[in-house]
Parts: sequence; C-alpha cells; structure tokens
Amino acid sequence: MTTVPTTRLLARHAVRARGASLPPPTADAATAVFLDWCAVTIGGSRTAPAEKLRQALAGHGGVSQLVGATGGAEPTVAALINGTAAHALELDDIYAPGLYHPGAPTVAAALAVADKEGASGERLLRGITIGFEIGNRVARTLGPAHYAYWHTTGTAGSLSAAAAVAEILSLDTEPFAHALALAATMAAGLQQTFRADSMGKPLHSGHAAQAGVIAGLSAAAGFTGTLDVLDGEIGMGVAMSDSPSWHVIDAAFGPDYLIQSTTVKPYSCCGHTFAAIDAALELRERGIGPHDVATIEVESYAAALTVAGNPGPSTPFEAKFSIPFVVAYALREGHPGTEAFHEATLEAPEIRKLMAAVRLHDGHEFTEAFPARRGARVVIVDPAGKHHRATVPDRRGDPENPLTPEQLDTKFLSLVDGVVGAGSAVELQRRIRSVREITDVRKLRIGPGDT
Amino acid sequence: MTTVPTTRLLARHAVRARGASLPPPTADAATAVFLDWCAVTIGGSRTAPAEKLRQALAGHGGVSQLVGATGGAEPTVAALINGTAAHALELDDIYAPGLYHPGAPTVAAALAVADKEGASGERLLRGITIGFEIGNRVARTLGPAHYAYWHTTGTAGSLSAAAAVAEILSLDTEPFAHALALAATMAAGLQQTFRADSMGKPLHSGHAAQAGVIAGLSAAAGFTGTLDVLDGEIGMGVAMSDSPSWHVIDAAFGPDYLIQSTTVKPYSCCGHTFAAIDAALELRERGIGPHDVATIEVESYAAALTVAGNPGPSTPFEAKFSIPFVVAYALREGHPGTEAFHEATLEAPEIRKLMAAVRLHDGHEFTEAFPARRGARVVIVDPAGKHHRATVPDRRGDPENPLTPEQLDTKFLSLVDGVVGAGSAVELQRRIRSVREITDVRKLRIGPGDT
Repeated sequence: MTTVPTTRLLARHAVRARGASLPPPTADAATAVFLDWCAVTIGGSRTAPAEKLRQALAGHGGVSQLVGATGGAEPTVAALINGTAAHALELDDIYAPGLYHPGAPTVAAALAVADKEGASGERLLRGITIGFEIGNRVARTLGPAHYAYWHTTGTAGSLSAAAAVAEILSLDTEPFAHALALAATMAAGLQQTFRADSMGKPLHSGHAAQAGVIAGLSAAAGFTGTLDVLDGEIGMGVAMSDSPSWHVIDAAFGPDYLIQSTTVKPYSCCGHTFAAIDAALELRERGIGPHDVATIEVESYAAALTVAGNPGPSTPFEAKFSIPFVVAYALREGHPGTEAFHEATLEAPEIRKLMAAVRLHDGHEFTEAFPARRGARVVIVDPAGKHHRATVPDRRGDPENPLTPEQLDTKFLSLVDGVVGAGSAVELQRRIRSVREITDVRKLRIGPGDT
Repeated sequence: MTTVPTTRLLARHAVRARGASLPPPTADAATAVFLDWCAVTIGGSRTAPAEKLRQALAGHGGVSQLVGATGGAEPTVAALINGTAAHALELDDIYAPGLYHPGAPTVAAALAVADKEGASGERLLRGITIGFEIGNRVARTLGPAHYAYWHTTGTAGSLSAAAAVAEILSLDTEPFAHALALAATMAAGLQQTFRADSMGKPLHSGHAAQAGVIAGLSAAAGFTGTLDVLDGEIGMGVAMSDSPSWHVIDAAFGPDYLIQSTTVKPYSCCGHTFAAIDAALELRERGIGPHDVATIEVESYAAALTVAGNPGPSTPFEAKFSIPFVVAYALREGHPGTEAFHEATLEAPEIRKLMAAVRLHDGHEFTEAFPARRGARVVIVDPAGKHHRATVPDRRGDPENPLTPEQLDTKFLSLVDGVVGAGSAVELQRRIRSVREITDVRKLRIGPGDT
C-alpha cells in the first residue's frame, strides 16, 4: 500500500479535532443522543435479552454500571449487556444514510470506559461524538451491499464503539488507528439473524460495544492491529461489501458533526412505517376517526412497502413491520408506544377491521426522494366518498423534522417511569440533561437508586 | 424452512452422543490435545499479545484462571486472553481439512467454563471433543472459499468454543442449538489482518473463545438465536462462503471423533514448511551437512510453494513462511523451535549461504496428494555431483505421521520450562496427562505456582 490506510486517516482527523471544544449545536446533539440512549436502555434493561445476559454474565462485580440495574460489571461485560439492552426495544436512534443504529453500541462502549476512567461528562460526550463521526462514515461507505448480508449496527458499530473509547482515552493517532483496526477484525452480525424473531439482533449491538471496548483498551496498552484492514486487497470492504471507495470517508472532522444528523425514533416499530403513522396521527388530530373510514389509501416509498408492507402480521414482532397495523392503531389509539405491540391489540376486531381497509401504493414522489427523505401520504375515503388527506414529506424524528423537546420528554418518561418511578424519572432526566457539567461520570447512576 | 436447521442437527447429535463414554482412543486424543494446548498457551502467555491483554483487561479478578499467570478473570475475559495466548506462537494444533486451528479457541473456552463450574477433567475433555467435532465440521464445510477472506480459526472457532461450553454445561438440544446460532452471528476475523505482522491474528482466536463462552452461558440462561443462521437464505454459508452444502455436516457423532485427526505442530513456523524440514532433518541425521551442499533441491505441493516460497525473508515473521530459510536452518542447526526465528539467525552468513543454494520445485506427486497428504522431498547435490535424497510423504505431526510421546514431551518442556522452571514443568506435565482423573478442574492451575 502506498496510500495511507483509512484507519490512520480517521485517527488523524480525530486527534486534530481534539484541539477545539465541540461546537454548541454538536454538544447539544450529543446530549440529546445520550438522553435518548438512557431512555431506551433503561426501558430495554427490562427485556428478556438484557435480563438473561445479566443472569448469565454479570455478578462478578466491576466498576462499570449496568444501566437500569444495580451493581456493576467489568467494562467489557457492561458494554455487552448495556449495548444489548439499548437495541432490544428497537427504539434507539438511526443514522439513515448508513442504514445504521449508532447510539446503541457507541454510547454503551463510551459509558463503560468513562465509568472505568472516572471521565467527565464533557469527555463522555466528546467520545460519543467522535464515535458517531467515524462509525457513521464507515456505515455509509459499506453501504447497502453490506446491509444485504450484515447488520451494520454490529459491524460499523464496532468501529464507532472503538472510536468512542479511543477518544475518551485520548489516544494518539497510532494507537487510535490500531483500535479501529482491531474493532474491524472483530466486527460481526449476520442479517440472517433477524430474519426471525430471536434475541440475536440486539446482541449484535452489545457485541459491537464489547469489541470496541476491547479494541480501545488493548490498543491503549500497545496491542496492534493491521491498519489496512478496511481498504486492503481482501479487507473489510471486499470481504463484507462491494469494494466501496474508502477515500470518500476522508474529510476533516467538524464544525458540523454527523451526530447532528441523528434520527430519534418516536414510535416503537420499524422506521419505514413512521411517515405513515405521522399522517394517520395528523388525521386523527383533525377529528377523523374509525367511523369515517371506507378505505385507507397509504402511499410511501418503495423500500417502505417492501420492508413494512405486511398486510397480516401474526406476531407483535411482525406487527412492527406492518404499515396496515400501525396506521390502524394510530388512527384508533394514537401514538404507538411499546404498549401497542401486544397480541391482544393485534387481535382486536376493531383494529383488524381498519387494517383490512388499508391499501398500499408506491408513491413515486416519495420513492424518488428516498433515502434522503422518507415521506408518506394517508388518504381516508369516508363512506360518502369524501377524501381526507395528510402528507408528511419527512417522517417525525428525522433531522429535518425533529422531535420537539416535549416529545423527547414524553418518550423518556414513558420508558423510564416504570423502572425508576415517576418522580425519580423526572429528576433523572434533569441530571442527564446536565451531563456536560458532571466532573466524574461515576456520579451519574442511570437507573434505580440514582436520585 | 422445511428442513431442520444445521444448528439443531448438530445439537441433536451432541446430545445423543452424551449417553456413552468417550472411546479410549478419543479420550487419549483429547488428553494429547489438552497437553499440547497447555504447552503453547503457557509459552504464548509470555508474548506481547497476551501480556498486553492482561494489562488492559484483567485485574478485576474472577473464577477462571489465566494460563501461565497468577490470578483469575471472569470467564469471558479469561477465554479472550487464554485464547489469544494459545495462538500467539503459531505452534497450536491444526485440523488440516478445515484450514483451521481448533485447539486454541476451543480449549480456552472449555477451560474458562470448566473453572467456573468446577467441572471434572472428564467433562472438560468431553467438552473439548464435542467442540472439535462441531467446529471441524463447520470449518470443512465453509471451505477454502471462506478462507480466502476469513480466518477460520476466528469464525468456525466461535462455534467450536460454543459447542465445548454447551457440552460442559450439559445443555439440552434447543439451548445447545441456540448457543451455536449465537456464536455464528458473533463470528469474525478478517484474513486481511494477517497479511501483515500484527497482533490481530491471535486475537481472532481469543475473540472466538470469548464469543463461544458468551453464547454458551447466555443460551443456558434462555437467550435465543436464529437457528437457520448457518444455512438460511442469506446465512453464514452465503455471506461468508460460496453457499456450501450444509447437509454434509450431518452424521452421528462417534465412535471415531474428528479430534483424532489433529495435527500437532512440532516446529514453530508455517505448517506448509514441515515436510521439507522433516526431509532436511533426516539428511542431517544421516550425516549430510553444510559442507556437502552444492545445491538443495526442494520439491513440495503447489500450495506450500505459494504460501511458503519466500526466497528472501527480511523479518522473523516472514522467515516462518520461507522454506529456503527453514531448510537451511534445519540442515545446519537441527529442530527449528521458537529460538530459530530471531533476526540474528536470519542474518547469519552461514544460513544466508545455504538459503541461496535452495531451489524450489512443484512436486507433482505431492500436489496431487494435497490436501489429504502434505509431503516434500529434499535432494542435496554435493560438490562432487552426488545426490542425497530424503522423501517425506506425510509431514511429521499429521495423524498419519504423529509426534512420538518423546517429541511431545520435548515440545512441552521447551515451551514450559522457561515459565515454570524445569522441575515444575515435568510435574505439571504429569498432572496434565492425568487430567481425566481430576474431579474438579479448579485444582489444576496451568502455570506458575501449580506444583
């Protein structure tokens, strides 16, 4: 290789950016990402995958906290468990151009090492920001050819996690690059795993967080990887994608960081259903209800219909990938939170009747705008033949149409109240919003007993 | 899928075989594998990769021993560190038809969980045997198309390790199958990593051991994977190989177990150089020395010349892949142990002169017999034109031409003496040979301070 390996280029940019404070909009975005991660991870800590991992692997003690639980674990185990919990509800954030959920593995790794180091909140946020910057670039470079077989959250997620750890440890360029290289050669997560309803999908995120912690801590101790593992002759780009052009990844970091392009999920289901939900909710707010329905015409982009067009979901998992179900639910019940996806709801005759009225159409305007924009239109035709129409060019939660602070609060409290209690949830939220002022992250316990 | 997933088939065979004791030749093979693993791991515990991992990740304490060191770690960390140490010297065992080093990840995982459980030596050996059986079958099925991009020791190694853990935990068929599925979706290790001299290659083995422990322990707690992750439409076979036929993997276990097909490495270098070394050593024993050399003609199979044909190695790492170097060394110095691969040796004029006399040839008889047999011929032509010939159809260490017990002892002591002291090494070796009689593996500490 005569060119500089991509791992070293990325590490150089990270180290050069270290001279300056994060710009305020970036720090705000990182704080919002952290708050949202805490919410979905506290909620996820009560799911089977997280509970079973704690049962199997925790209990040896350690300095890194287990979110939503008491006690700690050593950093690699905490990263594994928290990273799995963070993705278990499918409510964690998205970097849409990368087909990627960056927060789940990245924040889990960053927090585990920040706890180990007693890092400040500022350093934690910087680690998260750099993790997103590098992981998002890798995810976008690997692209859809990678996603056909691999779960980007498991693969690019390992590099995100390693970058976050390397930044928190303030590694120099060479060990920083080795951390990325080691993470790449531990990257895993087969797409086949989420062709069925198993616990393997969130484990990919936990594994990525763990790989990142191992890579970062061992590189800090002088462990070396192979720096051209991404762009080498038989490297990750060839083995796991269609030989993408790595040079597109090479640009100085900041002042606009990719963490500002994060999609925050308002609903507990597949992101391709969101714009249709938004449109249904808009109609509901205008007073249109189930009695006004003769047919429900839904237009969206082609990928949304392919992934989430299931007309007859038979399990809660399948319901998360069914525009007919979520539109029917939204029209009748409103905001689809985690409570929407239960068997009883799925079998309710009123919901079934509305689902049967849904017709899906490829909306060419939306397909042409995808993936930059992810929109939909819902048209309810009432029994008198009158059309009630709502058009959403950008789904709620995308950077172009972000959640309001109130909606973020609602999401946080809906996930956290049940775990820490309503009063404590508000106080915990306040403390998390102030993370930037914390001098030692170990003072912030994210779960029961913090407040 | 209407057919039974491969993970479940393999789990069924393992559970059915559990009714019977291991046949004596199998148990003997497992004991030999364990002894050899202890030797290479104790030796490997003094290499940079193992030392740096201990520095970065150990120190939190735990029930699972760190081989060659004092103290313990929790099981997933011990598996990572011991699995890395086991592969660090490149002296660990081989399953030649699978292009695979099974012992390094499999025994590391088995030992970490046997320590956690206080399992007997018998159960440890059974776990190792079942781990080899499943991992070797997976490695052979993934085949050379997989090895072109992936390090089989990292990938199939994850399944071997999970199988060993599942067997030690006596898992029923369903959780056993889930352990394999979870290991598969964490399988990693890019071949690009060992296109350069870094510490990433042995980390693949450690990562596989760790993934296997995580998969086995979490499946025991009820964590589920996706059972058709190997043979599904976009499963491991498609994503990481050329869609191999998984049905070839399906046959009852025993009475002949694949652990009996293990190659034990006598020399500290690439296995493709071994037959040529054997032939050179045979000539040396017949009294042929450097002064008899006008030219050295070496014939071997084509793959050996491709991988290990380097005529001018410039580093000790490259020297391990150089038939001219190792033949020159063997002729002059004898058995090439770890001490052979030092810069001073590589630069010695007497060695350089002999290397320059080596000519490599594709020996068609050897190429046709490959990969089932791995042979070579060395012909020394002396200054008078007389030919001195030695032919080795199967390299020393392969199942067809195994190491003698004395050679195994020599290997063990050469690796262990320096770590635990000469007297202690002999006693440790005796105790390891008796592992089958140990009621609780925690009584066997493999390293300093055991005896």
